[in-house]
Amino acid sequence: MKATVTKKVLSEGLSLLERVVPSRSSNPLLTSLKIEASSQGLSLSGTNLEMDLSSFAPAEVQEPQSLVVPAHLLSQIVRTLGGELVELELVGDELAVRSGGSEFKIQTGDVTAFPELNFPDQIDATVDAADLARALGSVRYAASSEAFQAVFRGVKLEKRDQGARVVASDGYRVALHDFALEGEVRELIMPARSVDELVRMLRDGEAKLSYGEGQLSVTTERVKMNLKLLDGEFPDYERVIPSETKLQVKLASATLKESVGRVAVLADKNANNRVEFLVSEGQLQLNAEGDYGRAHDTLSVEQNGTEPAISLAFNAKYVQDALGPIEGEAEMLFAESTKPAIFRPAAGGGYMAVLVALRV
Amino acid sequence: MKATVTKKVLSEGLSLLERVVPSRSSNPLLTSLKIEASSQGLSLSGTNLEMDLSSFAPAEVQEPQSLVVPAHLLSQIVRTLGGELVELELVGDELAVRSGGSEFKIQTGDVTAFPELNFPDQIDATVDAADLARALGSVRYAASSEAFQAVFRGVKLEKRDQGARVVASDGYRVALHDFALEGEVRELIMPARSVDELVRMLRDGEAKLSYGEGQLSVTTERVKMNLKLLDGEFPDYERVIPSETKLQVKLASATLKESVGRVAVLADKNANNRVEFLVSEGQLQLNAEGDYGRAHDTLSVEQNGTEPAISLAFNAKYVQDALGPIEGEAEMLFAESTKPAIFRPAAGGGYMAVLVALRV
Repeated sequence: MKATVTKKVLSEGLSLLERVVPSRSSNPLLTSLKIEASSQGLSLSGTNLEMDLSSFAPAEVQEPQSLVVPAHLLSQIVRTLGGELVELELVGDELAVRSGGSEFKIQTGDVTAFPELNFPDQIDATVDAADLARALGSVRYAASSEAFQAVFRGVKLEKRDQGARVVASDGYRVALHDFALEGEVRELIMPARSVDELVRMLRDGEAKLSYGEGQLSVTTERVKMNLKLLDGEFPDYERVIPSETKLQVKLASATLKESVGRVAVLADKNANNRVEFLVSEGQLQLNAEGDYGRAHDTLSVEQNGTEPAISLAFNAKYVQDALGPIEGEAEMLFAESTKPAIFRPAAGGGYMAVLVALRV
Repeated sequence: MKATVTKKVLSEGLSLLERVVPSRSSNPLLTSLKIEASSQGLSLSGTNLEMDLSSFAPAEVQEPQSLVVPAHLLSQIVRTLGGELVELELVGDELAVRSGGSEFKIQTGDVTAFPELNFPDQIDATVDAADLARALGSVRYAASSEAFQAVFRGVKLEKRDQGARVVASDGYRVALHDFALEGEVRELIMPARSVDELVRMLRDGEAKLSYGEGQLSVTTERVKMNLKLLDGEFPDYERVIPSETKLQVKLASATLKESVGRVAVLADKNANNRVEFLVSEGQLQLNAEGDYGRAHDTLSVEQNGTEPAISLAFNAKYVQDALGPIEGEAEMLFAESTKPAIFRPAAGGGYMAVLVALRV
């Protein structure tokens, strides 16, 4: 194998692989990536067993051939190269990497022992890549990193009348985002950690979805990905969304986020970072109390609804997370002090968070 | 006590204190800072027992009084405040912090139990604060963070014909920097960790030094600091600086740093990150070899001296550290393959690093 490729193209591809391929493993092959040189260029692929990734780097190839090398090492080397062009050549069982006045010779691995990664050609649905990234990115926080039940560590995709919805929940809160999608939608649950990587890989352009046995494949102009899916029954989250609310409040999302951050400094970390919300007469009062003292903040809000006042408490961290994806005006919708509350952008846009209230 | 101060001034002062005062301690008083309100403003002071710090914040004060509050908590609160002015008031044993629509009430501590911090008025020497910061900042890396002997974890100040010198060594390398200073110079050793904080506190203007019993005090326009000094005999580092060199090399510091970083990717971490330097015929060749392969790089250099060639090896990390403070052209001076080598800016400026060569 002999190939010439620009440093920029090669290091971009490698940096994507580096995000997925683990840097340490009891099986060294799993820390490797496979380079498949064809007449069009180099296909770089690797896996962390939860997610397979393939990236294509256009290159001038003289002798098509496949090989396996340590992923992070190659990425690190290519990043430090001084020249603009990189020459790759398989010499015996070593990959020579040459650029400018530098030459590296890296031991290659057993290409036949590398796991077979198959990326399907079939397309079941298409979606704007940036829309999908925004939707996934704005609900991902609500998935748990610790929950015993696997589904709480995932993000669910489901069908809606107008396209699709992604939703995540850790049992104390729900975040969901509706978005447009062309084609078939299948119910499935993606692991949140794979979702993080998927969000990073998605840019502009179109993402093509393909549903396989226990796996979702996503193809963009730059990359192909297979995500292993989670098994299990996602909780009936719609049950906790209040269908009727009695008091609505509007204010700038950033103002509320800052205020919650401020009073949360004194909130009791051992009592769920409890912050009390009191809405009355066009004012939102926030109170927190902990070992070191008390905090109080007052904000002007646009208040609507049939109830004149409401008082309830939330985990400050959860309120800040819920407000995270909301730019501009935020709307809070309250039913009762003991019922979950809705946080969403006043201007719409498909995102909604539902927070369980802390006990009074 | 009642005081009004701008958020900017107060939070700048608190953020300095926050760097020194520990956030956790078995003695809660040590995580506190003392506020002394006088007619001119607020003096904020705290200690980590190795370093005392005092910062002054001009303020409008109505009832001068002293109090003690958790340092990190107050700093965090003031940082999140929405208003431009902050009102502080001691109400019973609570400090009320008010700004915009926010009010915080923080428990205060026992002011009589807080350690007495004394900052001397006497001035023994003056130095340009930026010069001192540059000198300390460029040698600090050579101090050890682990060495059993305390002096290897410090930076020494000593007298030179033209001013002063700071020097650090971990036994494998030496870094020194000469700078101008007016007044008396005493030999003393500052703990490297206090040096880090001192460098961060120094800005433009003048730094006034005062030598005390086992302590160095540094006063600038913004802050007063006492540094507890280290006891012990600093090694005779001048012994390892080669007095005569036979081969000199000049090249851009950044070029060499990049090249060393490049070949070091394959250097053996278990063999001191060994990188071999071979100078001959106006070329510097770098070689490294490890478990994963071999790296080779060639650089053009300006070569001088009586020897036609030299070959020796260094710890790649140490070479990069030594080059860190060198901007523009770097000069390397070699005596023999087994002797230490000198790294310094070709343009002078007071900095020099000496590296022990690894065995062949």
